Amino acid sequence: MALVVQKYGGSSVQDAERIKRVAERIVTARKRGNDVVVVVSAMGDSTDELLDLAAQVSPLPHPRELDMLLTAGERISMALLAMAINNLGYEARSFTGSQAGMITTSKHGDARIIDVTPGRIRGALDEGAVAIVAGFQGVAQDTKNITTLGRGGSDTTAVALAAALTADECEIYTDVDGVFSADPRIVPDARRIDQITYEEMLELAASGAKVLHLRAVEYARRSGLPLRVRSSYSNKPGTLVTGSMEDLPVEQALITGVAHDRSEAKITVLSVPDEPGQAAAIFAVIAEAELNIDMIVQNISTKDSGRTDISFTLPKDDGPTAMAALQKARDHIGFSGLLYDDHIGKVSLVGAGMRSHPGVTATFCKALAEAGVNIEIISTSEIRISVVCRDTELDAAVSAVHRAFELGGQEEAVIYAGTGR
Amino acid sequence: MALVVQKYGGSSVQDAERIKRVAERIVTARKRGNDVVVVVSAMGDSTDELLDLAAQVSPLPHPRELDMLLTAGERISMALLAMAINNLGYEARSFTGSQAGMITTSKHGDARIIDVTPGRIRGALDEGAVAIVAGFQGVAQDTKNITTLGRGGSDTTAVALAAALTADECEIYTDVDGVFSADPRIVPDARRIDQITYEEMLELAASGAKVLHLRAVEYARRSGLPLRVRSSYSNKPGTLVTGSMEDLPVEQALITGVAHDRSEAKITVLSVPDEPGQAAAIFAVIAEAELNIDMIVQNISTKDSGRTDISFTLPKDDGPTAMAALQKARDHIGFSGLLYDDHIGKVSLVGAGMRSHPGVTATFCKALAEAGVNIEIISTSEIRISVVCRDTELDAAVSAVHRAFELGGQEEAVIYAGTGR
Repeated sequence: MALVVQKYGGSSVQDAERIKRVAERIVTARKRGNDVVVVVSAMGDSTDELLDLAAQVSPLPHPRELDMLLTAGERISMALLAMAINNLGYEARSFTGSQAGMITTSKHGDARIIDVTPGRIRGALDEGAVAIVAGFQGVAQDTKNITTLGRGGSDTTAVALAAALTADECEIYTDVDGVFSADPRIVPDARRIDQITYEEMLELAASGAKVLHLRAVEYARRSGLPLRVRSSYSNKPGTLVTGSMEDLPVEQALITGVAHDRSEAKITVLSVPDEPGQAAAIFAVIAEAELNIDMIVQNISTKDSGRTDISFTLPKDDGPTAMAALQKARDHIGFSGLLYDDHIGKVSLVGAGMRSHPGVTATFCKALAEAGVNIEIISTSEIRISVVCRDTELDAAVSAVHRAFELGGQEEAVIYAGTGR
Repeated sequence: MALVVQKYGGSSVQDAERIKRVAERIVTARKRGNDVVVVVSAMGDSTDELLDLAAQVSPLPHPRELDMLLTAGERISMALLAMAINNLGYEARSFTGSQAGMITTSKHGDARIIDVTPGRIRGALDEGAVAIVAGFQGVAQDTKNITTLGRGGSDTTAVALAAALTADECEIYTDVDGVFSADPRIVPDARRIDQITYEEMLELAASGAKVLHLRAVEYARRSGLPLRVRSSYSNKPGTLVTGSMEDLPVEQALITGVAHDRSEAKITVLSVPDEPGQAAAIFAVIAEAELNIDMIVQNISTKDSGRTDISFTLPKDDGPTAMAALQKARDHIGFSGLLYDDHIGKVSLVGAGMRSHPGVTATFCKALAEAGVNIEIISTSEIRISVVCRDTELDAAVSAVHRAFELGGQEEAVIYAGTGR
């Protein structure tokens, strides 16, 4: 008998009909003799509806109260899902994040899990019940206030709970059949990946693949928990995320997949004094505003001006804040101006095999050149190459790279769509 | 500085605009230097919407999960109300029934409060915050499951919390200006009652006056907590419920008000053997079905048949269950048939003064007779007379009695409407 944790996103439970379908799937897993814990997101658009109500009441809702409000969403979906399972003759009990022992920091809207004490979940399983747990939420260790986990919260709840319960597997149900070698909307012959290491999945998630959230993958890697991404509309096996690069056989495929990202913008700081400490001063301003940056490039100062330009990328959402913070520090840092460009795209190639194959970068750049894609910034890690190009050239870049590394397959892909939080 | 508990029903918080109005009213009370605790119901029709969702998922939703689902309603309204208060520059924190220490029995859908441990509420008040508490809900002492209190739950939450905090007053905000001498929709010159004893209010509530729930009044009486019923749309003082009949001055008005009730039905058990124990057998059947009855009348057996008819009234909702239970016991009890009549109405006259005024019953019956109302059943308590008549005659009965006891006033009444749970 195995212990399985399943996570269903908001689109999988968006109405009564889908909730009943999910209930059947859960009962099937239970019938096989498994202990089943289910983590569920809020129904479809219900979170947006609650946010809209909050906006009607206050232009800047109090974070503590916003968390209290939003957690009503999972409360509704989990109770309905438990009812639907009970209706099929199996016992199910729903638990809030607090009841399930999801102990977090007190940062409302973006709390971190610091402990998981799933005594009540264990108790429900011992009595033969399916435990349904609200994703995305917890309770702060110090204030005892209700918290939410921010982006990717429900995936993280599922992984953290599975790790605490030492589950055999954590299944993330979504509306795609698994992790693909590229976005099938751009690359029609994109291939579903059977199995992938945590490191590769982390690089793909960090590079814009939306199917799994970075935090959840990191958590699973630390716990050595096998993670399976699969569709809630089919019985296909999906993609298993497990194992370390170190354990990969030598004949492992060179490259795993191509990811892309349209969510970033580029800021260029013009004519910065080319002296030690100037880049540090710029990034200190960004860090103080609590923003994260992705790629950085500093131009070589060819002229004798003693000045240089520094460009970096960051999420578009943070663009205005970063621009305002830098503008305020202009005199202090001594740059001449700021450029803002939100028409960029990023294409990334990920594969554990590229560590030992020096020719990968050359093939990658040649493929882009032949497709007429101009590289604006390039950055690499041990198992990833990323370049920034024009957003209008992004689809062509993804296709060219996918083809150059012969990543295509025969299996028909189900079209990708956004997944729940 | 006083400690005030305010309770707002579902219609008072049915949308963002009304929530903001209620927030202003709360801030006004806070500005006067009061500590304020607010108990709030779910927004308008949101409970019905949740029930509808449950019905789509399961024909007979599991009671534990139904309570989990419904409590999302107050969670939403209380968080929004706290946001609206925060927005006005005052600190407010919302608390679920569980967080507020509403400890109950484990009977889902109809739990009873067995203890109130408002440590977190006290803490919020000590720090200068307004505490917003979800009405209608609690947590079971033994199972730790979330419970709901059933009908009148939010009023009861407010009174129980006020008693536990030894509040100076508990204000029940509703959509009428207070308790009236009769329903103003039937009697246009009905007078708002300034002050009324717990006993009289209990009799009025039990006789069909919907403005306050019986449970809440009983709880307030036991705790000696002054209760004020007032409108959330005006600044009128409303009606103060306080004090015992024993403390009333001699010159206290004879009669307080007229209540009516259209929610009952009458069952007649025909030709029951007129022997000791036969009535007991009938009511044992009703009790076993967990139904409550109101009035009972046993016909005098005039004939030598040794048989008699027994009639009783009960809530219409319980009618089918009672009929089925009696029909099953027909042979055992030995009656000849059952009659069911749901076209009855009940008019009740309540007043502490009638204890010492023997002429009240005579005036009451004469007024009804002059209005052409036929009395079918009559029952009395120390401070109440009730009669059952045809439902079509009920309005005339209420008007006639109200006029006969000169209960009318000059103050214009705001039209009565249903109040939240």
